[in-house]
Amino acid sequence: MPKANRLLWMLLVLTGISRWNDATAAAETVARVESPGKVLAVELSLDEGRIQYAVTRFGEPLIAPSRMGFQLRNAEKLQRGFALVESAVRSHDETWEQPWGEWRFVRDHHNELRARFRETGRARRTLDVVFRVFDDGVGFRYEIPRQDGVDEVIIDDELTEFAIAPKSTAWWIPAGEWNRYEYLYQKTPLVEVGQAHTPMTLRTDDGIYLAFHEAALVDYAGMWLRRVEEQRFRAQLAPASEGWKVRRSTPMQTPWRTIQIADSAAALYASSRLTLNLNEPNALGDVSWFQPAKYVGVWWSLHLDTETWARGPKHGATTSNTRRYIDFAAEHGFRGVLVEGWNPGWDGQWFGNGYDFDFTRPTDDFDLPGLSRYAAERGVHLIGHHETGGAVSHYESQLGAALDLYAKHGVDVVKTGYVADGGQLERRLDDGRIVREWHDGQWMSNHHLRVVQEAAKRHIAINPHEPIKDTGLRRTYPNWVSREGARGMEYAAWGNPPNPPEHEANLFFTRLLAGPMDFTPGIVSLQGRGQPVETTLAKQLALYVVLYSPILMAADLPEHYAAHGDALTFIKAVPADWQDTRVLAGEVGDYVVVARHDRAGDDWYLGAVTDEQGRNMEVALDFLEPGRQYTATIWRDGDAAHWRGDSRFAMQIESRVVDASTRLPLRLAAGGGQAIRFQPLQAER
Amino acid sequence: MPKANRLLWMLLVLTGISRWNDATAAAETVARVESPGKVLAVELSLDEGRIQYAVTRFGEPLIAPSRMGFQLRNAEKLQRGFALVESAVRSHDETWEQPWGEWRFVRDHHNELRARFRETGRARRTLDVVFRVFDDGVGFRYEIPRQDGVDEVIIDDELTEFAIAPKSTAWWIPAGEWNRYEYLYQKTPLVEVGQAHTPMTLRTDDGIYLAFHEAALVDYAGMWLRRVEEQRFRAQLAPASEGWKVRRSTPMQTPWRTIQIADSAAALYASSRLTLNLNEPNALGDVSWFQPAKYVGVWWSLHLDTETWARGPKHGATTSNTRRYIDFAAEHGFRGVLVEGWNPGWDGQWFGNGYDFDFTRPTDDFDLPGLSRYAAERGVHLIGHHETGGAVSHYESQLGAALDLYAKHGVDVVKTGYVADGGQLERRLDDGRIVREWHDGQWMSNHHLRVVQEAAKRHIAINPHEPIKDTGLRRTYPNWVSREGARGMEYAAWGNPPNPPEHEANLFFTRLLAGPMDFTPGIVSLQGRGQPVETTLAKQLALYVVLYSPILMAADLPEHYAAHGDALTFIKAVPADWQDTRVLAGEVGDYVVVARHDRAGDDWYLGAVTDEQGRNMEVALDFLEPGRQYTATIWRDGDAAHWRGDSRFAMQIESRVVDASTRLPLRLAAGGGQAIRFQPLQAER
Repeated sequence: MPKANRLLWMLLVLTGISRWNDATAAAETVARVESPGKVLAVELSLDEGRIQYAVTRFGEPLIAPSRMGFQLRNAEKLQRGFALVESAVRSHDETWEQPWGEWRFVRDHHNELRARFRETGRARRTLDVVFRVFDDGVGFRYEIPRQDGVDEVIIDDELTEFAIAPKSTAWWIPAGEWNRYEYLYQKTPLVEVGQAHTPMTLRTDDGIYLAFHEAALVDYAGMWLRRVEEQRFRAQLAPASEGWKVRRSTPMQTPWRTIQIADSAAALYASSRLTLNLNEPNALGDVSWFQPAKYVGVWWSLHLDTETWARGPKHGATTSNTRRYIDFAAEHGFRGVLVEGWNPGWDGQWFGNGYDFDFTRPTDDFDLPGLSRYAAERGVHLIGHHETGGAVSHYESQLGAALDLYAKHGVDVVKTGYVADGGQLERRLDDGRIVREWHDGQWMSNHHLRVVQEAAKRHIAINPHEPIKDTGLRRTYPNWVSREGARGMEYAAWGNPPNPPEHEANLFFTRLLAGPMDFTPGIVSLQGRGQPVETTLAKQLALYVVLYSPILMAADLPEHYAAHGDALTFIKAVPADWQDTRVLAGEVGDYVVVARHDRAGDDWYLGAVTDEQGRNMEVALDFLEPGRQYTATIWRDGDAAHWRGDSRFAMQIESRVVDASTRLPLRLAAGGGQAIRFQPLQAER
Repeated sequence: MPKANRLLWMLLVLTGISRWNDATAAAETVARVESPGKVLAVELSLDEGRIQYAVTRFGEPLIAPSRMGFQLRNAEKLQRGFALVESAVRSHDETWEQPWGEWRFVRDHHNELRARFRETGRARRTLDVVFRVFDDGVGFRYEIPRQDGVDEVIIDDELTEFAIAPKSTAWWIPAGEWNRYEYLYQKTPLVEVGQAHTPMTLRTDDGIYLAFHEAALVDYAGMWLRRVEEQRFRAQLAPASEGWKVRRSTPMQTPWRTIQIADSAAALYASSRLTLNLNEPNALGDVSWFQPAKYVGVWWSLHLDTETWARGPKHGATTSNTRRYIDFAAEHGFRGVLVEGWNPGWDGQWFGNGYDFDFTRPTDDFDLPGLSRYAAERGVHLIGHHETGGAVSHYESQLGAALDLYAKHGVDVVKTGYVADGGQLERRLDDGRIVREWHDGQWMSNHHLRVVQEAAKRHIAINPHEPIKDTGLRRTYPNWVSREGARGMEYAAWGNPPNPPEHEANLFFTRLLAGPMDFTPGIVSLQGRGQPVETTLAKQLALYVVLYSPILMAADLPEHYAAHGDALTFIKAVPADWQDTRVLAGEVGDYVVVARHDRAGDDWYLGAVTDEQGRNMEVALDFLEPGRQYTATIWRDGDAAHWRGDSRFAMQIESRVVDASTRLPLRLAAGGGQAIRFQPLQAER
């Protein structure tokens, strides 16, 4: 081959020219790292200068070689012509304490591979990739160092791919849609996924469970997963109103892209601790001012349409009605009382148009100072509510004053709301123009942190509805205590279709992998607006154990709890903070059995829920302290119980003595559940 | 319900509030139109103020109610709160003549429904939708009139949906990817499509064939089809570098969204005439200066790497080598000689970086004036070549001078090229900044028309490679004669995998529905760069009839044609312009039999190609003039022919006398084909 020609072809190869040769030449492996227990391995390779990663489990391919890189605005694609400059592997093993959570102690045991790549062509830009490999999952991120000519990156697309090797089934909801995260989970072959939110959960045909998600979503756009072809997915970042996806100065790092990997559905839940491990430690210091607790409030009535957010004869947030809730909370030991509709702005067309909201004063019929005092005298705290109607900048303009008002009156938990179509959150630019943002775009990722940080200064906890997804930031900001981000209980009131019996068994293995959810369970009346709630009564109780949140609503009306005292007994007892959590059994979308250890005492609790199939099973109680006897108080489905019809109310309460060697039979009705409290017979030894 | 509350709920309903009630209330039908033969019907409805359309065929649902609208930047979503202001139905039946094409005469017979909607809320914006319903397809577009407060629309997303009702199989390629349109067609269940280019072809389980595409893509972004869930797709416009998808002043209209609908694969091809019918008539007047013709040239050798674009000892575009091609063309009656690599810029790293290209002068070893004269003396025309390497603004800056140069030397067809990754075409802004555009974004839709219009002024025809897709604009600009836009023959030279035997049977029912393709067939040597071409010799001939283009390359080297004189005989005979076209039989991706009537005479030609399956069939020759006898000269696969191995060269030539009543048996080898020329025995009567 003559020299000029050789040079041309060499350049073509170096730049990964593909128009003229799309052959997949053998990629060159450049770095490798294994998990501490040699379960998982990650391999980095270069395919004609393109960085690829691959993941194996016990040597079997899970993620086939998958491309990495960025499409940038005003700069060449950051994907081709790379060579490895250096790589390093580091081991890490530490156990840290959560101020509150599903587990008090979390072990972070991983091996880290850090690799630096540099372009060999003209630009010679540098890109670092970092992989942390646990025995039950992998996290990786990009870091773009500060370097000549790269002061700022404007990311048009993140080119990260996930080429899932084994044939798999997926549980997923569509992303980039008007209804945000509020879709029923679909179970389809993986090849039928379009564009999905994370966490997306998979089961391979060989029975390996994977969940794709991200950790530490800070100053970046949320990642959707778009299927390109067959089982190959591409990161699809939520767009910014400017049209790009992300704008950042260097040095910068992306969120961690995470892949949880387990050999059972039950084990998948615990593997979600890697999301926490990949977040930065607590940045707030002592957060004992936040107390995990249960709450009641003016909420379900609004969805039943027996009360209204708007003022008028049915206004729910009145002084007298709120007193009724405070009295109920005080009588039954609920710390919080949420009141929605307490402030001006609800009387007009507020959906997606929240400019009338005033967050700094109550409506005339709501005596905030008086009610705060009334509550405090009874050991109760009002829970605040900031619905933006999508007018996010409008809310931000009042944020400080709004939080000051609450702080002044002892309100230390605030539920925020972002009711607007996806992509329609209103942001006011400096020049006064209004632009529209996605709930999970870069700007909202920063907005939420602004709110959380402002709240932290005032010792207030935040619980956003219609939120951005949870990526474990509660570790860094422990006052970001819960959120919605899925179809909650209100869909049982008016959803069409309503939440089906499988809904919670889907949520546990998908949405709940991300973190706490303010699902607002406990509808003991089992009745929505003209439609039944599709569960048994016992299942409503089990949800308190299954669907973790440090703020847990008893969502039904006081008068309904009065009519279901047996159920209320369990709701009053169950804690909202845990020492330990064990998933005893489960299958995605079918059923799950969870045991949790009260953080404040020796009790254990068990919650089991099933889908539309009834189930008989036996669970080992080996989580109990060996040699110690416990009274198990059992709230179970009655023998005739079924989620359809009046028999959904059938519930049996019974007790028996058990110990760690007991194998306890569980019988769950169709659409049913079971809740158990285990109390030691003897005092602590 | 108290009045204030009633008002709130009424407003929620009017604004289509969904967070609080996602029930699909019964939509209200507001307009309806049927096709002239009452085969298809389109119904417009309002679902809580959202415009929907639906399509039925003989009363059976094909497109379930599907939403319409726009997500805008700096203005509220244009989707909700609409009421019908007025609607009108109009019938249309005319036959018009193509200057060149598959059919000389095209009938445009449709009923048109025009509906005007206006928002009932604050903004009161107006949106028109127009449907044209043919017996074999539907086209619809939006029109946004000039109106107060809507001088300009910046479209972030077109919200048009396609909810395909019957369970279907799809043939598709991924869209929004780095390799543009150059992917192998996949056949998958429709629910496995991710994001697809159009045309996307479907077969319902009931045997109805659909193709989704668009017509008259002018000053707008190309439409990709993104599957949202199940069989529901959403228009996904190719992004602009500014981040939005489209920016337009009002009044404006979108391209037509088209759905071809037929009850056989064969009939689907003819239904593609609706794309032409939905384009504006010829804007150029007399275009007899463009002559459909065949050509040869310096091309296949470059893909074999026996010659190079770059200068040096293997440079293909030298004066002496070009003379050799001109001599060959003159001897065998080819009008055109394409020469790639004739101009400066090929010696460096030009892929995606075409700034070194000079389009206004040849390299030193290419005597353009002399060769033009040499060609003209022999009745041959050089075909020009403008490879941009993706530097599109750089090309535009030389466009006028470049075309002038060609016009001066009698070059009246120019092949353009846009070799760069998808999303990486370089556009220079007025301030000098370089931004990156998609091949099918709004800016490129305008770029191509600028080139075509500049060329038309000089009576030059344009044939873009790595183009924007064809949407029928050849009707309006008949000098836009062909294009690439799929995997062409060069992938047989070096593709990995190479084009498989089914490739052309896929192309015919997908890419070719859009319009002519410069596939460059006729590789009679059946040999690529270290890999065989996966067809029989007879199939290479059949492609001249099957894959329509008014400029048809005989793509192999002169010396190879010398060694295959029997094959060359057919290639020399077959015309490049047709009076009529009939698809006699076929199945998507399996096989196709096409008959075409020479526009310049009485001959008919038949081309048949199959995939890796050999086939025996019989075709009725009822397209021949009744009562007239024809000599059929048949180039068929030899009895031992097979696409694998040396037997792929086995070809048999024979002749027989036939008439319109003949049923002709066709035997196609595995990966084979057949080409037939029918010549009347008697002179015209």
